[in-house]
Amino acid sequence: MTDPARRRGPAELVVELDRAAALPLPAQLAAALRESIDAGRLRPGEGVPASRALASRLGVARGVIVAAYEQLIAEGYLRAEHGRGTLVNPDLGTAAVPASGHADRAGSGAVRVPGAVGAPGSAGAAGRVGLTGTTGTLAPMLDGDDPAPRPPLAPGTPLTDATERPAWRAAWRAAVARADRRPPALGDPALRREIAEHLRLVRGTARPADDVIVTAGAREGLGLLLTALGTTRGHGLVVGVEDPGYPSLRGVAARHGARIVSLPVDAEGLRTDGLPEGLLDLVIVTPSHQYPVGGSLPLPRRRELLDWASRTGVVVVEDDYDSELRHVGGPLPALAALDDPRAGSVVTLGTFSSTVTPALAAGFLLAPRNLRSLLEPVRHDLGSPVSAVVQIALADYLATGELRRNIARVRRRHAARRDLISERFAGSRDVRVRPMSGGLHAVLEFAGEGARRREARVVEAAARETTAFPVGLGIAELGAYWQHRSPDRASGVVLGMGGPDDDEFAAAIERLRRILLAV
Amino acid sequence: MTDPARRRGPAELVVELDRAAALPLPAQLAAALRESIDAGRLRPGEGVPASRALASRLGVARGVIVAAYEQLIAEGYLRAEHGRGTLVNPDLGTAAVPASGHADRAGSGAVRVPGAVGAPGSAGAAGRVGLTGTTGTLAPMLDGDDPAPRPPLAPGTPLTDATERPAWRAAWRAAVARADRRPPALGDPALRREIAEHLRLVRGTARPADDVIVTAGAREGLGLLLTALGTTRGHGLVVGVEDPGYPSLRGVAARHGARIVSLPVDAEGLRTDGLPEGLLDLVIVTPSHQYPVGGSLPLPRRRELLDWASRTGVVVVEDDYDSELRHVGGPLPALAALDDPRAGSVVTLGTFSSTVTPALAAGFLLAPRNLRSLLEPVRHDLGSPVSAVVQIALADYLATGELRRNIARVRRRHAARRDLISERFAGSRDVRVRPMSGGLHAVLEFAGEGARRREARVVEAAARETTAFPVGLGIAELGAYWQHRSPDRASGVVLGMGGPDDDEFAAAIERLRRILLAV
Repeated sequence: MTDPARRRGPAELVVELDRAAALPLPAQLAAALRESIDAGRLRPGEGVPASRALASRLGVARGVIVAAYEQLIAEGYLRAEHGRGTLVNPDLGTAAVPASGHADRAGSGAVRVPGAVGAPGSAGAAGRVGLTGTTGTLAPMLDGDDPAPRPPLAPGTPLTDATERPAWRAAWRAAVARADRRPPALGDPALRREIAEHLRLVRGTARPADDVIVTAGAREGLGLLLTALGTTRGHGLVVGVEDPGYPSLRGVAARHGARIVSLPVDAEGLRTDGLPEGLLDLVIVTPSHQYPVGGSLPLPRRRELLDWASRTGVVVVEDDYDSELRHVGGPLPALAALDDPRAGSVVTLGTFSSTVTPALAAGFLLAPRNLRSLLEPVRHDLGSPVSAVVQIALADYLATGELRRNIARVRRRHAARRDLISERFAGSRDVRVRPMSGGLHAVLEFAGEGARRREARVVEAAARETTAFPVGLGIAELGAYWQHRSPDRASGVVLGMGGPDDDEFAAAIERLRRILLAV
Repeated sequence: MTDPARRRGPAELVVELDRAAALPLPAQLAAALRESIDAGRLRPGEGVPASRALASRLGVARGVIVAAYEQLIAEGYLRAEHGRGTLVNPDLGTAAVPASGHADRAGSGAVRVPGAVGAPGSAGAAGRVGLTGTTGTLAPMLDGDDPAPRPPLAPGTPLTDATERPAWRAAWRAAVARADRRPPALGDPALRREIAEHLRLVRGTARPADDVIVTAGAREGLGLLLTALGTTRGHGLVVGVEDPGYPSLRGVAARHGARIVSLPVDAEGLRTDGLPEGLLDLVIVTPSHQYPVGGSLPLPRRRELLDWASRTGVVVVEDDYDSELRHVGGPLPALAALDDPRAGSVVTLGTFSSTVTPALAAGFLLAPRNLRSLLEPVRHDLGSPVSAVVQIALADYLATGELRRNIARVRRRHAARRDLISERFAGSRDVRVRPMSGGLHAVLEFAGEGARRREARVVEAAARETTAFPVGLGIAELGAYWQHRSPDRASGVVLGMGGPDDDEFAAAIERLRRILLAV
């Protein structure tokens, strides 16, 4: 046998799985492995047990082991190397990783990732400074401004039928009868508890309800944070954003008077090897699932980002827009799970738009204690914008466990649509479906010489496809997500996988396939 | 007969009342009189017909005429002079008043009120510049942060049972079933139409639904306006507030980084004879019912304020917090009704907290076209914070006409409580009940030498009154509403007239009466 894990002694891996616990078995195993790596019991470069052997030893299905390993590979804890099996990511270096969710960052300044800060490329990010422009030409945030039919492939349309279920209606009935006073500034206490528990189960954070503030969505949460930062740092904040990136939060920062600085992104997400020093007040990142290119920020980069933020006093906004809908492995733990709950840098913004309904206009932010003390007095003076009826209904709904069941349904339906996309575009000329580990949208990349021009022509042809769909297909140019039209950027189109009707979705995909044959 | 109106020829007053119209007869008559005055058919100093004579001529009850005259006296159009009857306010001068709601301000720069701008006192306001402090010690905005019992006389608690009625529950049932997409950035179109119509009927504005933006309440609306102004005027806005005044919106301005400038108030409201030039970006006023002293801004001051705002480019925020609950006469027309709908200065902030329920966390702003064009793109980028479920439910509820019925009920209950207060405190030593034309609170003023000290001692004794009321009575010091402790300010206490239970209210008033006997 050439199993490297065996060679190096998997006996030191002590795992106890509890079938009665709320946390699924793969998540329990992943947590145990994370802890072993964090504590140094498993060292960088060292192999982990083969999945079949470990499954047999623990008495669980092999799929449990595979799912946990996939999760840890996605997070950057593990790496699958051809011919060597699965091993602890050698890039983790020799320093201890702060324990997920319980980390005390004292002394973490000593943690260094080789070849990171100050590496070639440092000048690049700081040099790419520019003010944001309008966001109007980009993937539309579909709101009801236009009550007309929605284009079937527009990015940003969620796929959820939560609101058609009895649990949803029952929660509202109770809330309408019960809500009789102004919503608490920081949020309904029961809702804050439910959100903290939800985040613990699906996002790997271990944080108290006090760290949760109920918001009217990610944009409103960012607005609160910017207002609060403005009171201490003065106005004219400088905000770093991923380029390419989703225009929504960038637009909020610009409207709050912030100067926007573009930060470069590669296939794994934000490049952390050249983050500027002394320039930014705040940086907005999508570590779970970079928008639109889809990378998941590896653990070494997460650590480097947090280290940089802690050193420079930058607030890191984690835009956690669709991590719960990941369909390969479980959702990645939030960046906040690595942060110091007392003196940390990460504010996680979440929303229930894609998991329940965008009609709700409700979300949350999760902030460590030091940042909470900045946010709380501001929120008290501004008041909560989220109706007490909405908050009580949502708290009741979460308490039923129905949200997690709905997320599981949505994941299954997304996976089916992802498979349909992979299958339908497999043979298209010069088209590559970007690997999709989750999310609400797909990216088709174009290869070949005319790729850049093809992008615009395909989007226009899709907009003219109005026989079956009154307002066209609604796809967006991939290039539109770049603030700076870099010559080496990818070309292609972004299409949403939302919308309630499977048949309509399939028909729209077929139309797009035909367009790609012709254009 | 010495009726001056007869002498001067009431025949020129042409009034047609329509019993089938939605607008009540007194409001129709008031509108006709306003129009006659605006058009110069009735001139300043000229008498109007005696109520009995006009009632007989028009074939209506005399109460209709009296109500219309009271309304116009409150607005400053008419004046009741001892021995001369009722006449058109001589202070209106000779210039034409812009027609309510349809005014085109072209040429209005020529409108002058004698002895106004530049009169003694100009220096006073600009000299009283100070940053706002904390708002924590003032009348608590009761939100559910503390789920414990509410003090029965705390200012800010509404008196409404709208949510216990079937129309309310039916509206929500329909909304929960129907809402399926993100709320439109500017608000649900049906809700905007209903609000515009409601404002037309009860606030005297004649403005299209396009001028309405749905907000999460007055504070959220002000936040939007400040954010939008910041994008064009840069940060470090300077905001004028009434002193004394309600701390809520002042706190929002401070949190948005504004410098707060105090403006003096007298018994009629904001003093407009010394408004500073070239200092302010925005001024927040309560023209319908000054908080807490209760004056209603007379028409000459309203015109002077608008004139000044138009000349200096200042945005006037009309905090229309309780005008609908006025119990003497109809509610005053909004300041916005005098403003230019195309190039005006007034943004009216309203809320449904006191007329429906504070649990709703929904309100609106009304802005003229020029200011809308500033607000709309910002709102599109920030998104609506108000759940589509809330908006659709509220639109349906307004469409039933139930809100106006509820307002009528609340007014009757408020009037009864006001009468109880007047009666119970009539004999108290050195206590004067300030005249109350409406509103959610009452002011007891203290006279005599120890008034200033008595204020604090009464509030403290009321807070200790915990035998029948677990958290005390919850009244506030009148002095707490002044930012600058001017030596000639009034002393007394502010008490809320809200809370659902009439018996509890009466018991709390009795306790307070006993305290005032002893302290």
